[in-house]
Amino acid sequence: MSALAAIRMGIRIKTLSPTASGPVANIGEACIGDWNDPLVMAEFAKDCDVITVESEWAPAEIAEQVASSNTQVWPSSATLRTIRHKGRQKKALQDAGIAVPSYTCCSSFAEAEQAWLDYGQKVVAKKFEGSYDGYGNATVRSMAELKQAWADLAADDGLLIESFVPFKRELAVMVAISESGDFVVYPVVDTEQQNHRCHAVTVPAPISTRTHQEAVDMAVASARAVSMVGMLGVELFELENGELFVNELAPRPHNTGHYTIEACHTSQFENHIRSVLNLPLGDPSLQVSAAVMINVLGKRSGPVQTDGLKQALAVSGAAVHIYGKKDVREHRKMGHVTVTSSDVETARALAEQAAGHIHL
Amino acid sequence: MSALAAIRMGIRIKTLSPTASGPVANIGEACIGDWNDPLVMAEFAKDCDVITVESEWAPAEIAEQVASSNTQVWPSSATLRTIRHKGRQKKALQDAGIAVPSYTCCSSFAEAEQAWLDYGQKVVAKKFEGSYDGYGNATVRSMAELKQAWADLAADDGLLIESFVPFKRELAVMVAISESGDFVVYPVVDTEQQNHRCHAVTVPAPISTRTHQEAVDMAVASARAVSMVGMLGVELFELENGELFVNELAPRPHNTGHYTIEACHTSQFENHIRSVLNLPLGDPSLQVSAAVMINVLGKRSGPVQTDGLKQALAVSGAAVHIYGKKDVREHRKMGHVTVTSSDVETARALAEQAAGHIHL
Repeated sequence: MSALAAIRMGIRIKTLSPTASGPVANIGEACIGDWNDPLVMAEFAKDCDVITVESEWAPAEIAEQVASSNTQVWPSSATLRTIRHKGRQKKALQDAGIAVPSYTCCSSFAEAEQAWLDYGQKVVAKKFEGSYDGYGNATVRSMAELKQAWADLAADDGLLIESFVPFKRELAVMVAISESGDFVVYPVVDTEQQNHRCHAVTVPAPISTRTHQEAVDMAVASARAVSMVGMLGVELFELENGELFVNELAPRPHNTGHYTIEACHTSQFENHIRSVLNLPLGDPSLQVSAAVMINVLGKRSGPVQTDGLKQALAVSGAAVHIYGKKDVREHRKMGHVTVTSSDVETARALAEQAAGHIHL
Repeated sequence: MSALAAIRMGIRIKTLSPTASGPVANIGEACIGDWNDPLVMAEFAKDCDVITVESEWAPAEIAEQVASSNTQVWPSSATLRTIRHKGRQKKALQDAGIAVPSYTCCSSFAEAEQAWLDYGQKVVAKKFEGSYDGYGNATVRSMAELKQAWADLAADDGLLIESFVPFKRELAVMVAISESGDFVVYPVVDTEQQNHRCHAVTVPAPISTRTHQEAVDMAVASARAVSMVGMLGVELFELENGELFVNELAPRPHNTGHYTIEACHTSQFENHIRSVLNLPLGDPSLQVSAAVMINVLGKRSGPVQTDGLKQALAVSGAAVHIYGKKDVREHRKMGHVTVTSSDVETARALAEQAAGHIHL
């Protein structure tokens, strides 16, 4: 989707993927190769002004090592290194004075046990690296669960134990920020998870003006805390008392910002491209009153076959996005539907209806 | 832009162009070849469910001849044959009872002279085939101009003489229509020409509800009159007394519908794809109060170099489209800018400002 936004502005795009399985096969000059191989990366980087990554796991550090001084890499490998490791990420946020749930980086089981006791025997254990969408996380309410979590999730440097936050709502904020320091902030959205995966994103979020401003401020501070350049997704918890904590950062256009394609003057994808190219940033504000995005997740495993597209397109006003992934897995994000409307209730009903028709 | 809309829905795209000069080089599987060569077309058509054309001059008749019965071609060559020839096009509209300016297909200069006299010695002479954007047209106010027009524009079958219509406004309507007969109609837009080329498109057009309905009815009747399948652009003249005439048809997504990408629930490009695939058509209505599109025309000749993109992107809310054409000619359409807003005045000012910055 970033590539589509770039092409619209007349910006030439090439992509490097480890396998030909992805949605980029149809867009721009698609290179397939082992992106951890410096020779492959050097060949790819030759005629690039800017290299950006769509995953925090892409080897930005190799791109930085092999690219000429005329080629920039954003976000930087230093930013990605901080964000990839949940311990380093939380410390960077905490050091910047941003509220995060209490946490301990536990290098031994004894430390994990102590943290579990300190945080009231209800905690979340997280792998330091590689956890997402419910993978690599465990809610721990007993010593038995703690032992299991340690066995499943601890790496050489241990794991993260975080106090369980009794949130009433999950929010997210997208920030686009350039090397120059210029930034724009998208409206705060409400995100609903089902089985640890984002199901629905609603904008505007049903929060007070004050909470909105606090969330925006925390998102901008987070972007600065990790020296972000590009689009940053900031996930937050809102407590009953209105208190906010930053939960996690995603250094890229983010699922909770997909609605911006239809609903905002400038989409998160276009602003990602603009920010990494140090072009002026576009207006992130809503051009409609309300929007809801519903994710379309895989319902089977194997080669993709899309059923129900016709029925989904028959839902008036539904913008249907299918990512063109070649293979489907259960619960894998395969597409999404956005509906804009004068109110969130109408948008929600239509988006759920359209997304519900699609089976991949 | 149609290809980008298709990719978003997970629909596989390939393109056939006579040269590699075009914007499609970046999108989908791009085939370069002589599309008038049946062997080239047959090879291209092999794995296509549907072939559509982005120009009325593309050889749909060859595609129909060589494609298997599993491959549909929309719009059909019969539709294109009618539309390509201004005499046949006008006759088809007239036969369907649609108001068009008085015209005569003149096969001899004597006939042209008679028509010129009949229409009050002020007429427009048009080449039957190949005229667009002011090319191949001439306003004729004298016998000398008539002689010149005949010399310049007459083909083997002569030329078209049309009475000059003292219009107060030019309007356009986009219609998407499927083989099944399902159709949707976009809002009527106001179009302003400069030097015979579309400069600005404004929506909503400043017309009465009654005129709006009449324009919509004429557009739908026009689509039926030429058995259109796909997106049809219908250009109209509005007279001082509110009378409407159909001026010209364009059997494809049309410059006057570019604004639909940002301003409507479903863009003209997506509805073109949906209509040729016989998928349910999307909601054509505005999701904003107002939008203005300004064309970006070539200001020099030679290889493209885009200046002023940075300044254009700095205009808040401007959606900048650069088509990625390799070569620029003076007055060639190279891109456009759309701004959506609560009112047309604001949208117009910002769109003009952004478009004015771009030099190609």
